[in-house]
Amino acid sequence: MSQTLPLTASALERAEALIACPSVTPATGMVFDCLEEQLAPLGFEVHRFVAGEAPDGPVENLYAVRRGPEGSRHFSFAGHVDVVPPGEGWTSGPFLPERRGELLYGRGAVDMKGSVASMIAAAAEIPAEAGTISFIITGDEEGPATYGTRALMDWMAAHGEKPDLILVGEPTSVHRLGDMMKIGRRGSVNIFLSVEGVQGHVAYPHLADNPITKLVAMLGELDALVLDEGTDWFQASNLEVTDLTVGNPAHNVIPARAEARISIRFNDLHTGAELGERVIAIAEKHGGSARPVISGESFLTQPGEFSDLLAEAIRAETGVEPELSTGGGTSDARFLKDIAPVIEFGLCNATMHKRDEAVAIADLETLARIYTRVTQAALRA
Amino acid sequence: MSQTLPLTASALERAEALIACPSVTPATGMVFDCLEEQLAPLGFEVHRFVAGEAPDGPVENLYAVRRGPEGSRHFSFAGHVDVVPPGEGWTSGPFLPERRGELLYGRGAVDMKGSVASMIAAAAEIPAEAGTISFIITGDEEGPATYGTRALMDWMAAHGEKPDLILVGEPTSVHRLGDMMKIGRRGSVNIFLSVEGVQGHVAYPHLADNPITKLVAMLGELDALVLDEGTDWFQASNLEVTDLTVGNPAHNVIPARAEARISIRFNDLHTGAELGERVIAIAEKHGGSARPVISGESFLTQPGEFSDLLAEAIRAETGVEPELSTGGGTSDARFLKDIAPVIEFGLCNATMHKRDEAVAIADLETLARIYTRVTQAALRA
Repeated sequence: MSQTLPLTASALERAEALIACPSVTPATGMVFDCLEEQLAPLGFEVHRFVAGEAPDGPVENLYAVRRGPEGSRHFSFAGHVDVVPPGEGWTSGPFLPERRGELLYGRGAVDMKGSVASMIAAAAEIPAEAGTISFIITGDEEGPATYGTRALMDWMAAHGEKPDLILVGEPTSVHRLGDMMKIGRRGSVNIFLSVEGVQGHVAYPHLADNPITKLVAMLGELDALVLDEGTDWFQASNLEVTDLTVGNPAHNVIPARAEARISIRFNDLHTGAELGERVIAIAEKHGGSARPVISGESFLTQPGEFSDLLAEAIRAETGVEPELSTGGGTSDARFLKDIAPVIEFGLCNATMHKRDEAVAIADLETLARIYTRVTQAALRA
Repeated sequence: MSQTLPLTASALERAEALIACPSVTPATGMVFDCLEEQLAPLGFEVHRFVAGEAPDGPVENLYAVRRGPEGSRHFSFAGHVDVVPPGEGWTSGPFLPERRGELLYGRGAVDMKGSVASMIAAAAEIPAEAGTISFIITGDEEGPATYGTRALMDWMAAHGEKPDLILVGEPTSVHRLGDMMKIGRRGSVNIFLSVEGVQGHVAYPHLADNPITKLVAMLGELDALVLDEGTDWFQASNLEVTDLTVGNPAHNVIPARAEARISIRFNDLHTGAELGERVIAIAEKHGGSARPVISGESFLTQPGEFSDLLAEAIRAETGVEPELSTGGGTSDARFLKDIAPVIEFGLCNATMHKRDEAVAIADLETLARIYTRVTQAALRA
C-alpha cells in the first residue's frame, strides 16, 4: 500500500492495492490513503472527511475531482471501499489479495474495490481536456449508510459540485461481465407491527384479550394486499412478513403482546410514506399499531441517452447486450438519484459477500475499458 | 413436624404441621413423613413409594386406607402435598405457618395442605365401622404429574384398591367456602405448529418460500373454528394461539421456519386425539405440520347422587348453595375419573399460587365438618 503505483498501473494492480487495506464497514483511514495515493497523481483534487460516531460511525468519505475546461460536462464515478466482514474459512487471507489461475481473490474483489480500481484505471486513460471527472467514494455502503453517501452529497451541495451523470460501480453483472445494468431500484420500507392485549389464563379467555388473534387477522389482510401489477421497468411491489415475536414460554397463558415485522420492496408507483400510512391504517383497524422505517425510496433512470451510451460501450468491449434491470436490493443509487441521472454497472456478483470472493482478472481490465469508453462518450454528449 | 399430634388435633394444627414441611413440587420425604405420622395413629395402613427421575421426578406418592367391615362402601380423599414455589416478598416465611388474626398464612394453606388437613380431621371423626376410607395423595400435582396420580392409580390397580367415590380437595370455593364444587373439567391439548419454508432475500421473493405467509393463513383458519356452542354443563370449547416464534433478526431476509403454539380447552363433546387430528389436517392443508400434546381429557360426573350428598353437607354446615361448575384449569381429577365418579371441593382459591397464601382458620374446621358429613353419607348410601 505504501508502495506507490505507476500512473499506468493496471486495474488489477490497483485492485490489489485496495484489497490489501482491511476496511470492514464502516471504513476509515488506510484504504482512503491508498485511494488518495492513486488519484492525486492523476491530477485529482482529493477531499476527505470523517463523519459520525459509534455505532454507525466514524465513516470516512472521499470526493475527488479533476476539472475539465470551463463549461465541460461532469461525469461521476460513485462507489464504496468498505466491505462486509470476511467470515471464516477463506482459502487465502481475505485482505491478502492473491492471484490463482485466472482469478484474483480477496474481500471486495467484486463488491467493489475491483470496480473502483477499474474506474481509476479508466480515468488514467482519459485526457483532462475531455471534461470533468469525479469520484464519490464512501466508507459506509455496506452498513447503515447514515454517514456515508448522504454526507458526501451534503458536502458536494455545500461546495457546488454537481455532476451531470453518475455511474455507480456495484457488481450488477450476473453470468458474464456486461449482461446486466441497473437503471433503477425498488424502494424498501420495514414496518414494525405490534398489538397489545390483556394477559390471562387460557382457561379463562373471557378475562383476557389475545393479541395474537388480532395480529393474525392483521397479517392475513396485509398478505392479501395486491400493491400493483408491476410497471414497464419494475416487477410488482412485494410485501413479506419477515418476523413474528411473542416469546411466551407458558403453555397455559394468553400473552400480553404480539409483534411482527414486514418488509415491502416497492416500485415507482409508491412512496415509503404512502405505504407506511396504508399499513398503519390496517394495523389500527385490527387494534394494533405500526411503525414504518423507510430504508430508501425507489428510483428509475428512464432508459435513454445514458443507458444507450453505456450499452454501446459494453457491446463494443464484450459483444454482450446488457439487460436493463431494476431488480435486487438497494444501493447508494437511492440517494444519488436526487442529484443526477444514475445507473449502476460493474463486475459479476456471484461471489459478493461470500467466502473466497474473487474476480476474473480479465474482467477488471475489460471493465476499465468499458468505463473509459462510456465516460468519453458521456463527456462528449 | 417431629412433634406427634394428638388424635383429636384440629384441622388447623394438622395444616400447620404440613405447611411446616417445605415441599416445592416435585415433593418427597418430610411432608410425607408428616402425613404418615398423622394417618397411622388413626388406624390407616400407609403405603408410600417414590417414582421417576429428574427432571420430572423423583416424586413421592402415598396411599393410605382404613378398611371398614367386609362389603363396606369405599370413599376416597384425593389430593397433593406438593406446592408451587413461594416466590419473593412474603410477610412471614412461606414454610413457617403463622396465624395472624383470623387467617393462617403459609404456602399450601389453601392449595392444598389445608384441605388435606381437613380430610384427616374428618377421618378422625368417623368410626372405622362406618366403611372404608382411603387417601390418594401425590407429591406431583403442581408439576408435569408424570409420576404422580397416574403412578398411584397404577399402584392401586395392582393392589386391587377400588374406591366407589373420590373427593378431590382442590380449592374450588370462590367468594366463600361452599359456593362452588367442580363436577367436571375441560380437557386440554397444546398443539405445536410449524411451517418449513425456503430462506431468501426479501428482494428476491421468487427464490424463497415464506413460511410466515402459510402460518398466518393456517392460524386464520384455526382462529375462525367454532368447535361447539357449549353443553348443559360445559362452556364452549375454546382455542387460543399462545405463542408465535420466528426469531429472525435480519430485516431483509425471508426466514426458513415459522412456529406457533395453540392451546385448546375442550368440553366432553371432544377428545384430545380428535382435536389433534383436526388441527393436523388444517396445518397440512397450509403446508405445515402439527404436533399435539394432550394434557388431559375432559371429564364430567353427571349431577346426581354424589353431587347431591355433597351439596347437602355444604348447605348443612354453611347455609351456602354450591354452584356446580366445570370451569377453570385442569386437576388430577382428569386421571381419577377413570376409576370412580369424582368431584372436587375445597377451600377458597383467592390466594392460591400467590404471595402470602392464606386460609381463614374457621374455614379449615368448617371444611373438616363438611368432609365428615359427606363421607358418612356416602358410606351409608
